[in-house]
Amino acid sequence: MSDPNGGTIRATREALREGRTTSQAVVQACLRRIEARHRELNAFVAVHAEAALETADRCDRERAAGIDRGPLHGIPVALKDNFDCAGEPTTACSRAFRDNIAERDAESVARLRAAGAIIIGKTNMHELAYGGTGEVSSAGPARNPLDPDRLAGGSSSGSAVAVAAGMVPAALGSDTGGSVRIPAAACGVVGFKPTLGAISTRGVMPLSWTLDHVGPLARTVRDAACLAGALAEPGTSLAAVSGLAADTAVLPARVGVARFPGLALEPAVEAAFEAALAGLQQAGCDIARFELEHTREAHVSWLAIMYPEASARYREALASRYQDFDPAVRTQLEAGCHIDATSYLRAQRFRAFYARRIRELAAGYDVICMPTLPTVAPRIGQQTVELPSGTVTTQDAMTFSNLTANLLGWPAITLPVPVQAGAMPVGMTLLGRSGDDVQLLRSAAAVESFLRSC
Amino acid sequence: MSDPNGGTIRATREALREGRTTSQAVVQACLRRIEARHRELNAFVAVHAEAALETADRCDRERAAGIDRGPLHGIPVALKDNFDCAGEPTTACSRAFRDNIAERDAESVARLRAAGAIIIGKTNMHELAYGGTGEVSSAGPARNPLDPDRLAGGSSSGSAVAVAAGMVPAALGSDTGGSVRIPAAACGVVGFKPTLGAISTRGVMPLSWTLDHVGPLARTVRDAACLAGALAEPGTSLAAVSGLAADTAVLPARVGVARFPGLALEPAVEAAFEAALAGLQQAGCDIARFELEHTREAHVSWLAIMYPEASARYREALASRYQDFDPAVRTQLEAGCHIDATSYLRAQRFRAFYARRIRELAAGYDVICMPTLPTVAPRIGQQTVELPSGTVTTQDAMTFSNLTANLLGWPAITLPVPVQAGAMPVGMTLLGRSGDDVQLLRSAAAVESFLRSC
Repeated sequence: MSDPNGGTIRATREALREGRTTSQAVVQACLRRIEARHRELNAFVAVHAEAALETADRCDRERAAGIDRGPLHGIPVALKDNFDCAGEPTTACSRAFRDNIAERDAESVARLRAAGAIIIGKTNMHELAYGGTGEVSSAGPARNPLDPDRLAGGSSSGSAVAVAAGMVPAALGSDTGGSVRIPAAACGVVGFKPTLGAISTRGVMPLSWTLDHVGPLARTVRDAACLAGALAEPGTSLAAVSGLAADTAVLPARVGVARFPGLALEPAVEAAFEAALAGLQQAGCDIARFELEHTREAHVSWLAIMYPEASARYREALASRYQDFDPAVRTQLEAGCHIDATSYLRAQRFRAFYARRIRELAAGYDVICMPTLPTVAPRIGQQTVELPSGTVTTQDAMTFSNLTANLLGWPAITLPVPVQAGAMPVGMTLLGRSGDDVQLLRSAAAVESFLRSC
Repeated sequence: MSDPNGGTIRATREALREGRTTSQAVVQACLRRIEARHRELNAFVAVHAEAALETADRCDRERAAGIDRGPLHGIPVALKDNFDCAGEPTTACSRAFRDNIAERDAESVARLRAAGAIIIGKTNMHELAYGGTGEVSSAGPARNPLDPDRLAGGSSSGSAVAVAAGMVPAALGSDTGGSVRIPAAACGVVGFKPTLGAISTRGVMPLSWTLDHVGPLARTVRDAACLAGALAEPGTSLAAVSGLAADTAVLPARVGVARFPGLALEPAVEAAFEAALAGLQQAGCDIARFELEHTREAHVSWLAIMYPEASARYREALASRYQDFDPAVRTQLEAGCHIDATSYLRAQRFRAFYARRIRELAAGYDVICMPTLPTVAPRIGQQTVELPSGTVTTQDAMTFSNLTANLLGWPAITLPVPVQAGAMPVGMTLLGRSGDDVQLLRSAAAVESFLRSC
């Protein structure tokens, strides 16, 4: 795990297959890294050291006996604390659920185990996944490994921190308005949210069941694809992706860069993003710009769906354990009890309209591209972000560009673009059309490979 | 059309095939019957005499040329006024929609035409289908052909009247909480609501898009099956039913009679229903009783879904054409704007729970059986119904037993049971499990055949 390429699923798998390491050794290295920066970064809320080492031992014995369960055999993976893991607490980092022991594995966890992955522990998160900063958590905020005074982004904050700090090669997150992609971008890793329904959300504590997605965080696009392929529901196009090979990565010929009207980027973000685009253009990509429409209605629709769905799910808990929720989360849950159903229904109907409209706007582009965040990771405690276009709340700065993919249910992936040495990470999002997960991952793998070569 | 079996699709088809009549003659006979009782019964809001005669002529010429489009070739069918019929008004018997001209045919209307059926006109209905009495309509109430001082039931009131009065062999209705089955039972004909989604609702003015169904009204179960088969979406089990033959009708071995706690039947209804059950028992059916559960929560959930869905659909119309809605419908639309989304979402979630629960309760029965209405058709203007269990609104008396099938999305059919000469009709409902449309129709055909032989 000490060479520069170490820590990816791909490199670890090669080392395991060639007998250069064992799963036991890999897990032990992960446990040491988790321990080394635990107090500083607050990435994990539970580490299943003993169980992970036992599973690693079983994986090593299987391998010695000639059994190879595939690309995840013997690879450690971390879970956001809203994934059910049989016999372990699922708290979603809320004191209201501190006693909530999972009876069985979430669907995605069961698929991971069947693929030979090793569950190493549960990661810190924004309480109930109900926020994009990662700051609100019964365990305290997760911290950005590149600057611990800054947010990791949320809500899958600990999963991003764990991957970025080299504690695990990959982790699972959930994403209702960007919660996989936001912390991935803020911490400088890859985060992928597939097409709605391509990965089961069964056994993941819901925030908003028509917007919730499960997705992987990893260090490379190929690793994210490998994990997504193992998690995919049979019959989805995503299920065929696990073998994404280097030779199938293809730079997208036509990239449509989406601009959000009224939202200007921080200069550092703009510079890094535009430099990446300029590089892609030189590499032969046709870069065109278009302006998104109905972004305000999209934002309002997203709120009008998420708020009441969350409140419908947590209404009893709110009544019985009021004091156990963080005040900010509590207020959101209260507000969601008072949104009228016609607003909710109109918001749901907007989704179909919006998908048609974005299809028209982006007709002719292979992928839609945008900066994942308009800012680098804000400081912990920072309530607002100053953008050239004006002041926005930190929450809105995190989610504004990302919720579109949840409303549409389309696949989206964020990957880091080159920044100056010592600068905070900047993420680029590629958005594909519904069901086009594999094409999107191929484009993203090629973009990543090109940007790393710059 | 003068013999006792005349007026069924089956008898008409035989006469057409054997050259004993023509579609022109059949349509002319229907037009005469419509005209003869038009003022008395108020069944139709538009009669497409000229177009129907032209289509009949084309059907006759096709038949003469050896073309037979199947069992509906040359058969007249009436449409409830919420079905789009290209170039004709779709008013849903609301003054607010008097200028609403349909651009194209509803999916079901297009399927009817492709099957050779002749659209003879649009029938009276409860305004927007938003009520079970048929009394509220821009055209005035439809009247029960067996006693014009009584309600026809709703909301597909005119379709039931037209079939019961021999004006057409069959008609289409829509059903959100019993609106096909209620008037069918009140007027003494057959009404069938298939599994949710088995017949497209595209082009039918929605009341509540997660509860709305399309279904046929006819004089016999076989006729209803014939129509349903022609309307079914390809790939559904219902699509295979059109050839329902006499030899496939099978009396259900085990009938579970569902009792609604707290709802006692009018003595005349109870006597007719129990006599029918006793007959079935003698014929070899195993009759068992069980009590439905959660009926109050089912009723409340149905309201919490229908109200906001209707209001979301008609909110602009309510604002711009407030005075054009009947006060009762207007009040319902207003109320639906103020139901909170968490109540709506909980009601939607109740549906899945309820389906599991009813499956358990009714495990071991081939069909579930219940009286369609606890009362015979009430008098026009009668606001409440006195039952042995207490006073209920006429609206609740109509819908209470029927909304279950809409919440569950399961198929349900009502057919008349024998009553004393001169008595008002009593309907028996058979409820099947989701997707079991064909089995339900087979059972219903056998029950009908047995009851007619009594």
